[in-house]
Amino acid sequence: MQGNYRALWLNNDFFDECLEVVDQRMLPFEYHTQYLTTTEEVARAIKNMTVNGAGVIKSIALFGVYIAALEVEGDFEKLQEKVLLIKEAIPSVLNFSCKIDIMVDYLRSSSDVIGDARRYSIEFSDNEAQESQKIAQHGCKIIEDILKNSGKTRINILTHSSVGWLSMIDDGSALAPIYEAKRRGIDVHVWVDEARPLNEGASLSAWELAQDGIEYTIISDSTSGHLMQKGEIDMVIVGADSVNANGVVNTIGTYLKALAASDNGIPFYVAIPTSTFDFATEDTSIELRSEDEARYMRGVDENKTIRKVQIIPENSHVIYYAFDVTPKRLITGFITQSGIYEANFDKIQEIFKKSNG
Amino acid sequence: MQGNYRALWLNNDFFDECLEVVDQRMLPFEYHTQYLTTTEEVARAIKNMTVNGAGVIKSIALFGVYIAALEVEGDFEKLQEKVLLIKEAIPSVLNFSCKIDIMVDYLRSSSDVIGDARRYSIEFSDNEAQESQKIAQHGCKIIEDILKNSGKTRINILTHSSVGWLSMIDDGSALAPIYEAKRRGIDVHVWVDEARPLNEGASLSAWELAQDGIEYTIISDSTSGHLMQKGEIDMVIVGADSVNANGVVNTIGTYLKALAASDNGIPFYVAIPTSTFDFATEDTSIELRSEDEARYMRGVDENKTIRKVQIIPENSHVIYYAFDVTPKRLITGFITQSGIYEANFDKIQEIFKKSNG
Repeated sequence: MQGNYRALWLNNDFFDECLEVVDQRMLPFEYHTQYLTTTEEVARAIKNMTVNGAGVIKSIALFGVYIAALEVEGDFEKLQEKVLLIKEAIPSVLNFSCKIDIMVDYLRSSSDVIGDARRYSIEFSDNEAQESQKIAQHGCKIIEDILKNSGKTRINILTHSSVGWLSMIDDGSALAPIYEAKRRGIDVHVWVDEARPLNEGASLSAWELAQDGIEYTIISDSTSGHLMQKGEIDMVIVGADSVNANGVVNTIGTYLKALAASDNGIPFYVAIPTSTFDFATEDTSIELRSEDEARYMRGVDENKTIRKVQIIPENSHVIYYAFDVTPKRLITGFITQSGIYEANFDKIQEIFKKSNG
Repeated sequence: MQGNYRALWLNNDFFDECLEVVDQRMLPFEYHTQYLTTTEEVARAIKNMTVNGAGVIKSIALFGVYIAALEVEGDFEKLQEKVLLIKEAIPSVLNFSCKIDIMVDYLRSSSDVIGDARRYSIEFSDNEAQESQKIAQHGCKIIEDILKNSGKTRINILTHSSVGWLSMIDDGSALAPIYEAKRRGIDVHVWVDEARPLNEGASLSAWELAQDGIEYTIISDSTSGHLMQKGEIDMVIVGADSVNANGVVNTIGTYLKALAASDNGIPFYVAIPTSTFDFATEDTSIELRSEDEARYMRGVDENKTIRKVQIIPENSHVIYYAFDVTPKRLITGFITQSGIYEANFDKIQEIFKKSNG
């Protein structure tokens, strides 16, 4: 693979610039990238999970507006129509349509729609990368504290789903403090939940950690409770697609891990940029995704050929909710670019009001 | 497939009687049976999970003593040696070695070791079947009560792992009340956990329920918490490999489901024959099984050929604990052949002392 530890970037090897993304559906078995040259391709890459993860979807959505601007040659009226494709493709729990609207609004009065769209989307992505680095540092401080208080020399961290640079930008969110711990020479071991049915953990997080030489062990999603009871997990760090009035919306299964952490007195942290806070939203309707995503499993056969196999009986019904909602009472704290916050939503809102005022 | 709804039976089509078992490793894709004609074959079938599930392993273990008796032509000294193979193959959490010892002791003074071994093992298996029928009836009473109290006409039951006739005898344990509910015309729908890494739920329970025309939906092991929050699960029924002083030892992941049920005020029942109670045991060391069982996944390709694919990155470390321990505080009650018991271990011990005295 390339040394490029980002999930997406602009490629200008061609006449028109395009977006190049890591095809997450082929990982961990093959490293491929895809060129996205039209708005349709960007929307499809989000929908079919060529790219997946809150941070990356947000970045690709805004880069998508730039791709749309290129496609319509800067015609703002046509751009507005194209952008609907992207808005429609984004999972509703991300609540990101408004951010696309803000970008489009910004372009309304622009004399250089293409150039401004390019700058805007790059700035967003670079900003996410900077936030990721700050999340890494604040999170690593917690890791150091836990180690100091426990008297141990090695920390075991559980993570659920994919929350490194493949799904966010730069270090990512939940994996960011772990990458930083490694850089600081801390002896860190990661328990990686499979995160069925898409296996983002076993395929993406594990692959990422392997690239970076971080020690990890893959476990089925049912295993962490037992490991916590045995004292083999010192802390949990997950990401989030959204934090709304009801709690933390994240990959399905996060709620069960939070329950187990709470039952065993293990700190449970959510690492996110503060833009993930969305307390104004109360309704959390989790969409059902296609049955087929749970019906089939990808893997490699004995010849290392990627194969999709059906893992449930013929004619069986299966459902797939991609997210669940973890109540705030189960959260120890949020690791953000601006520091650590207790899961007191009123207090967090108060702080943000002050910092904005 | 055959109309034979048992996981194992004696086959006397041959000169010497042998044991015939359903090969669970091929399900749900193909229905095959295997002949077990030697003690070695019986031990291997337990170890490689040709048969799996507490009840079936117990039955096959005692039938194995009969197979051993046949093999050594009734020579008691040789039998004692052969039996060690079976004892060694049985998962230690079942704590069943003592029951094999009791059977062997019974045969010590027998003038017809083969005939007595045959009668003893058949009696054990028939007794398990009778207990299963009683578990079905007591459990169905609870289903009826929950329906009555809720005012609903349809009940949604979550189950984890394989706990029907494939893993027990006759109706099984956790699925037994569901089979009985169907027979009584109750509108029942089962949420079937995949139960990774072996997928006993998605492959065995789902296949069993399909054979019996019971409505079910397969879900990933991470999904039930979200369904409980949405009010889509009315009760949980699981089985158990053992109930010891520390709690309920059952397929890994049961603990997380019990936490979620407790958090959402959903009744959580454990359906077992009372022989599963083993309060004298305090230590619950859960053995690690082979990494490969979690590294690969079985399924069928587009030509319906069974294939094993590797689902995690090359050189990744993965661990597989088969069981976890659910504390009694999370259990609503035990559904047994003798009735329903609250999860008060002292009280249960008291009752059994009385009924034995």
